[in-house]
Amino acid sequence: MKPLSLSPAATAWTRSKPPLLRFLDNCLNEFSAETSGSVADYIPELSKADPAYFGISLATLDGHVYEVGDSRVPFTIQSMSKPFVFALALDLLGAGKVESAIGVEPSGDPFNSIRLNSENHPFNPMVNAGAIACTGLIYDSKGADAFEQIRLALSRFAGRDLAVDEAVYSSESQTGDRNRAIGYLLKTNAVISDNVAGVLDVYFRQCAVLVTARDIAVMAATLANRGVNPVTGEQVLTPYAISRTLSVMTSSGMYDYAGEWIYRIGIPAKSGVGGGILAALPARLGLGSYSPKLDKHGNSVRGIKVCEALSSHYDLHMLNRSDDARNAVIADYDIGKSPSRRVRRPQEREILAAHEQEVRVIELVGTLSLSAVDYVSRRLAGRPRPQIVIFDLHRVTSTTRAGARLVAEAFAELAALNVTVVISGVRRASKEWDTLREWTAELKNVRDFYLLDTAIEWAEDQIVYRYGGSIDFHETTELAEQPLLSGMSEEELTDLASICTIRTFPSGAKIITTGDPADALFFLRSGAVHVTLPDGVRLATLTAGMAFGEMALLEPTRSADVFADMAATAFEVPLRDFERFRKQHPRASERVMRNLAQLLADRLIVANAKVDILTSM
Amino acid sequence: MKPLSLSPAATAWTRSKPPLLRFLDNCLNEFSAETSGSVADYIPELSKADPAYFGISLATLDGHVYEVGDSRVPFTIQSMSKPFVFALALDLLGAGKVESAIGVEPSGDPFNSIRLNSENHPFNPMVNAGAIACTGLIYDSKGADAFEQIRLALSRFAGRDLAVDEAVYSSESQTGDRNRAIGYLLKTNAVISDNVAGVLDVYFRQCAVLVTARDIAVMAATLANRGVNPVTGEQVLTPYAISRTLSVMTSSGMYDYAGEWIYRIGIPAKSGVGGGILAALPARLGLGSYSPKLDKHGNSVRGIKVCEALSSHYDLHMLNRSDDARNAVIADYDIGKSPSRRVRRPQEREILAAHEQEVRVIELVGTLSLSAVDYVSRRLAGRPRPQIVIFDLHRVTSTTRAGARLVAEAFAELAALNVTVVISGVRRASKEWDTLREWTAELKNVRDFYLLDTAIEWAEDQIVYRYGGSIDFHETTELAEQPLLSGMSEEELTDLASICTIRTFPSGAKIITTGDPADALFFLRSGAVHVTLPDGVRLATLTAGMAFGEMALLEPTRSADVFADMAATAFEVPLRDFERFRKQHPRASERVMRNLAQLLADRLIVANAKVDILTSM
Repeated sequence: MKPLSLSPAATAWTRSKPPLLRFLDNCLNEFSAETSGSVADYIPELSKADPAYFGISLATLDGHVYEVGDSRVPFTIQSMSKPFVFALALDLLGAGKVESAIGVEPSGDPFNSIRLNSENHPFNPMVNAGAIACTGLIYDSKGADAFEQIRLALSRFAGRDLAVDEAVYSSESQTGDRNRAIGYLLKTNAVISDNVAGVLDVYFRQCAVLVTARDIAVMAATLANRGVNPVTGEQVLTPYAISRTLSVMTSSGMYDYAGEWIYRIGIPAKSGVGGGILAALPARLGLGSYSPKLDKHGNSVRGIKVCEALSSHYDLHMLNRSDDARNAVIADYDIGKSPSRRVRRPQEREILAAHEQEVRVIELVGTLSLSAVDYVSRRLAGRPRPQIVIFDLHRVTSTTRAGARLVAEAFAELAALNVTVVISGVRRASKEWDTLREWTAELKNVRDFYLLDTAIEWAEDQIVYRYGGSIDFHETTELAEQPLLSGMSEEELTDLASICTIRTFPSGAKIITTGDPADALFFLRSGAVHVTLPDGVRLATLTAGMAFGEMALLEPTRSADVFADMAATAFEVPLRDFERFRKQHPRASERVMRNLAQLLADRLIVANAKVDILTSM
Repeated sequence: MKPLSLSPAATAWTRSKPPLLRFLDNCLNEFSAETSGSVADYIPELSKADPAYFGISLATLDGHVYEVGDSRVPFTIQSMSKPFVFALALDLLGAGKVESAIGVEPSGDPFNSIRLNSENHPFNPMVNAGAIACTGLIYDSKGADAFEQIRLALSRFAGRDLAVDEAVYSSESQTGDRNRAIGYLLKTNAVISDNVAGVLDVYFRQCAVLVTARDIAVMAATLANRGVNPVTGEQVLTPYAISRTLSVMTSSGMYDYAGEWIYRIGIPAKSGVGGGILAALPARLGLGSYSPKLDKHGNSVRGIKVCEALSSHYDLHMLNRSDDARNAVIADYDIGKSPSRRVRRPQEREILAAHEQEVRVIELVGTLSLSAVDYVSRRLAGRPRPQIVIFDLHRVTSTTRAGARLVAEAFAELAALNVTVVISGVRRASKEWDTLREWTAELKNVRDFYLLDTAIEWAEDQIVYRYGGSIDFHETTELAEQPLLSGMSEEELTDLASICTIRTFPSGAKIITTGDPADALFFLRSGAVHVTLPDGVRLATLTAGMAFGEMALLEPTRSADVFADMAATAFEVPLRDFERFRKQHPRASERVMRNLAQLLADRLIVANAKVDILTSM
């Protein structure tokens, strides 16, 4: 083997960059050359910003944050606070109240327009009038606590405690007469009920909250992630508030440049005169950029370039999406093709063979979207009616609410036809489970098992019961009935019986432990046991008449655990005694080895069939 | 078994409805009660429409079309032609020409506004001025052929040949003075260069094209499917033209109601005064609705209700998306955990065991999006550098262009570090392959094999070669080296050799055929063979020193085919002779059975490990 010291290649490996980070690096280098535009000067304190600052950060929805340049330099959030405060207002005060006070149509005006719509309400929450109205609604409800509520909400979006730039706050407050005019106009139109000065004080503070490009990226990623901060995992606001906020960002976030922005960039965004731009691409990423020089629309010149580059380089336009629902079904078979790992006795095998089409297994993959579920619902109807359908969702990477709702409707349709539905592959504690159960919880025809094999075993049992089979765990079997001993003469069996001891195991007892010396074979006489790997994977369930620990014939140590599923009895044959038996009865011994090879060959066929189902579709 | 005649439950099964169809049924029933609004009367011919008509159709992107009610009743397309003609103009004339003549900002005006923007251009292609300008640009370029080009494009979107309602056309032409005014205004501003009457004639004809709700659903689904008609499979226009068209539909498709529409419905849409509404949800579906009574904005009253119901019932707002990139990796292991099915000799096994970490296999699932690939690129860096990385894309359901581009960047990063990339699970003839190769085609470090097992086998060979192992297919081995015969005495081996014949097979020869009687065992002496199932699944590749056809010891007929991979020689032992040998040498025979059981147990471990990899992540 090679020495462990780091070779040059290995060092290069540890220094290699994920391509997205390299992309941001390239943006930083290329757009640093861009020095057009000018720093905002309508608030004196803002004009002091160093125009050379340039930081970019991109937060992924699995919680990784890429940062390049001056991504930790603080600046004031300004208008980028508007979407978050609108979202907060929706959740805090109820959508009805907010939506009746503030419109959602683009005005085509600049951000500081004082024009109201035909109902004398602000056009939308992204212009100053609408944002002040939002803050006013929160102030009406929370009074002196309003600003703290807003600051805490912004902090939860950012995943850290955010502070206010007091100098910018006083500067804004001293020069904010246009916003005062808007405030009084809103009061005269009864959009703000009282205390314009108090509302504006909260508004000026809210605009002066200090953030970094990194903060903005995380805040944007929270918008892109249905309100869950991908770094802290906190559900900051409801998905409703988030999607509606993204809607107004889409239609009005870039003011009189909104149509062009959707057309060219296609990523909901918001800028602030402090030099920040945030962009949130749903289900993908959040971007934060900081560079103080602004264009004539008041947007950061370099920030716009970063958004353009991200959209065009990766073709990330939100309306340019594709999918193929047919790929969602990765396997679709009945239990004839892939039975459970439960070793069945002849009567059970016969029943199952006659009714194998009555349990259908559909394994799904990728996103459980409306399209995917609709496709499955049509595919299901194209074949004879099964008694039981098992949907394995192990490889489902996400479930949309549309998909979940359609799942519930498809299950209800099956219930009406007396088809039982079994879900496997979803843990009950998971988010996926909650999404699925939101609409399926009331359905009586739905069962769930985490392991597909357990689900198939349960379904097989139902079929066996339904068609008159009984699974009698109290039955006892004799050695002569053991397949491993088939073909042995009566004399050989009698000799073997003489070296057996009958052992009794209580339910749950651990009979065999991985790693122990393999010093005995067992022939199950009554009850049931299961064989599991140390990592918990269940290899087989065995009932009376079957052998376990038989690998002792080949291996010196145990490679799996065996537990009693219920009170069980077994014939135990110590390996030492069996070796003596082998020498006395070479023909019988050859027979046992042959039977063992046969059992293993049968298991191999099942395992290979399973591998093929999983890899061939 | 049950009789084959259809039971009542089985009849119900065949009559059961996919839940989406049931949803459309419910919409039809519920909204039929809605009789407000009035039929368009500004074109006399339109006012003749029967207000009772109500048809809904929904086309999925896998090409299924649901229809309820009057979904086959023809009506004129009117303004719903605008997005398609805009998209056609983008592709026909080039985006630069079209985008410089027509803006993309919402105007906030009604559809028939005569106002132009500050550059004296139409605000956007969804208002009449913009649509007439679009038609004018096509007329300028195509002259007398302009209308036929438009009609053919609309027909390709619909997937059938569309005709014109001549009565509506003449009625529009006779009463279209406002549109004439717009036409001359465009000419005076040099947006239309010539022949206003000719342009308007094309425009009036284009608005009078006859469609059904079903047509509109398919046309919308083509927009939702990046320009590929999901029923005919034809790529009607480029993805660029489609995503930009959806952009202007989003910002301006519903005129002065656009902000509200994004906010409440969140599905790009367009209506026509003929009573039609089309809605296109990217990557999901296309909806077409027909009901002639219009609201004050000129939108079909019932059609709006259908869109609202679809969006709210299934939570289909386009900005309400979620995903978890971490679920994209379904398995991540090195070849120590899951070797190929090639049976390796001891020297090869040793080399591979010492270097197992140098081949890493990452199996991906679901959508290969920017998020998924980014996550994989970071995950890759978190472990020691492999020589070879195999990406298995078998279960990848779709690849976004962003994902493909990031894949190319990640591969380039690996190339710089001398890491070889192997792609498996993508057929070269597929769309997925084209997407992936768009940017990776130039990379020299990329190999591909359709089967993951073949990819692993190739990677193993590279490691064996690299670390001094040789795979000498000309070497010959003796019977004593066969693992199946290990533990036999010299005398026993000599007796066995006496019943062997040495057989020679040319490359490609079929040595064993499925279904034939299993009447001989073979011990491979030189060369290589492979074992495949009748369906083509390759079970194993064997080289000199290994047995094949050995299942003849257990099974009376062959269950797999064996082919010579190259010129090969083998010791053949007829089963009849082997039976005699068994009787003479019971101890040797027991040994062979035990060795066989051991081989099967080893294969079972590999197969079970593979099943666990595939099902446990």
